[in-house]
Amino acid sequence: MPRLIRFGVSIEEALAARFDGLLRAEGYGSRSEAIRDLIRKALVEKEWARGGRIAGGIGFVYDHHKRHITDRLTDLQHRFHQLVISTQHVHLDHDNCLEMVTVKGEARRIETLFNAIKSTKGVKHAGIVRTTTGHGMS
Amino acid sequence: MPRLIRFGVSIEEALAARFDGLLRAEGYGSRSEAIRDLIRKALVEKEWARGGRIAGGIGFVYDHHKRHITDRLTDLQHRFHQLVISTQHVHLDHDNCLEMVTVKGEARRIETLFNAIKSTKGVKHAGIVRTTTGHGMS
Amino acid sequence: MPRLIRFGVSIEEALAARFDGLLRAEGYGSRSEAIRDLIRKALVEKEWARGGRIAGGIGFVYDHHKRHITDRLTDLQHRFHQLVISTQHVHLDHDNCLEMVTVKGEARRIETLFNAIKSTKGVKHAGIVRTTTGHGMS
Amino acid sequence: MPRLIRFGVSIEEALAARFDGLLRAEGYGSRSEAIRDLIRKALVEKEWARGGRIAGGIGFVYDHHKRHITDRLTDLQHRFHQLVISTQHVHLDHDNCLEMVTVKGEARRIETLFNAIKSTKGVKHAGIVRTTTGHGMS
Repeated sequence: MPRLIRFGVSIEEALAARFDGLLRAEGYGSRSEAIRDLIRKALVEKEWARGGRIAGGIGFVYDHHKRHITDRLTDLQHRFHQLVISTQHVHLDHDNCLEMVTVKGEARRIETLFNAIKSTKGVKHAGIVRTTTGHGMS
Repeated sequence: MPRLIRFGVSIEEALAARFDGLLRAEGYGSRSEAIRDLIRKALVEKEWARGGRIAGGIGFVYDHHKRHITDRLTDLQHRFHQLVISTQHVHLDHDNCLEMVTVKGEARRIETLFNAIKSTKGVKHAGIVRTTTGHGMS
Repeated sequence: MPRLIRFGVSIEEALAARFDGLLRAEGYGSRSEAIRDLIRKALVEKEWARGGRIAGGIGFVYDHHKRHITDRLTDLQHRFHQLVISTQHVHLDHDNCLEMVTVKGEARRIETLFNAIKSTKGVKHAGIVRTTTGHGMS
Repeated sequence: MPRLIRFGVSIEEALAARFDGLLRAEGYGSRSEAIRDLIRKALVEKEWARGGRIAGGIGFVYDHHKRHITDRLTDLQHRFHQLVISTQHVHLDHDNCLEMVTVKGEARRIETLFNAIKSTKGVKHAGIVRTTTGHGMS
């Protein structure tokens, strides 16, 4: 079991009221939970900026009719196979595919893979979820 | 076959040289391809800001030992089943799970689902890939 | 005097330790201060996304040798004079000027002014600071 | 005079039409101008990520009634005087001040100054415009 600590936060009443509005709108059950989330978000941003082992997902959309694109994207994922955990493929419509590649590894290598996917001819758009392996984030 | 058009871009030589450096670093094969990507990126950002039908992925990390968290996350995805295409689950380690949920639908509803996942007690961090259905993006 | 309230936050010891590392690195004097900042940051992001009265700055770089650019930029600021509080002009070098325009008003109108500056021929790059009027943010 | 080069971009008709819509909405006079802006934006993002000499602005809001805050902020700017070009001060209302600090120098030192301002007790919110010195951006 992780050990919990408890500390007090002083905050102006009006600011607390606005924060309560925000956390209700986003569905948080308590201030503590919302604050832990803000803290973890700040830490995750640092992890990605500094490098280190992280996890995440790369999503991209392409037209599978483009010549050799499926092969090129498969080859690419194999070259980075130490980062790639698994891939989820969605047939968006007759032409468009959405692929979500789940990744874990060194932040900079994942950015390199992201750039390689993004710049593959025929990939229309690529985005990235930068999240965490969860270590030290409980 | 989509019809191609061709137009000229005037650009200062020094700027072109720096751009060539950037596109080599990111792995682009031609200026045209890199420019199409910049254009699509700008359009995708607008699509998400304005609303409209989009596609993407929500990635989040949680400790599956937290009480009822798996049920809560499953219920949530069912409530938004019209948006959720499929889910990929990764066992990061003994405690941590990474789940990538592929989504398609109205941008604002997807943001609502994202907030609901993010604010679920026990979810350590959540991120989102905002991409496109590919329509009009060829 | 604004009324202060105080509430407790429960947090796992390891997460608190990492947060303490982050706040030392960024120079915060206490957890309370860092948490108030995270809260205000989340609120400011909402204010800009939803619209409402906000404050901020638009910074842009241009080459003053470009034909009529100074006139065009001055005209533009006059057209939006109800938003523009003041302008600070820096001679970066023989060619380049950096101008910081401080603004206050409705978020969407400020985004319109930002787009108009960004798209002015001769403006090399424009960026924006999205901050707050400070109301309800004490 | 900077030397201009001209190159062709091939693009699907439907994508070009959407891009034309975007550039009209943002006020661009030509595709060339809009594309140069996308290119410079990508280069500026790289400059900030990699480090190097850049320019920009730090904007922040504070309540000048907070004890010693004016002194602390002035001292801070003096400590970083080699980065700070000038400061613009706006009285937003009876309590709130908005200050826009124009900066030029090494990207990482500017981020350090930004963190120091952001974490100063009494500063409600701080934001940053990351732009360019204009070199090689014509």
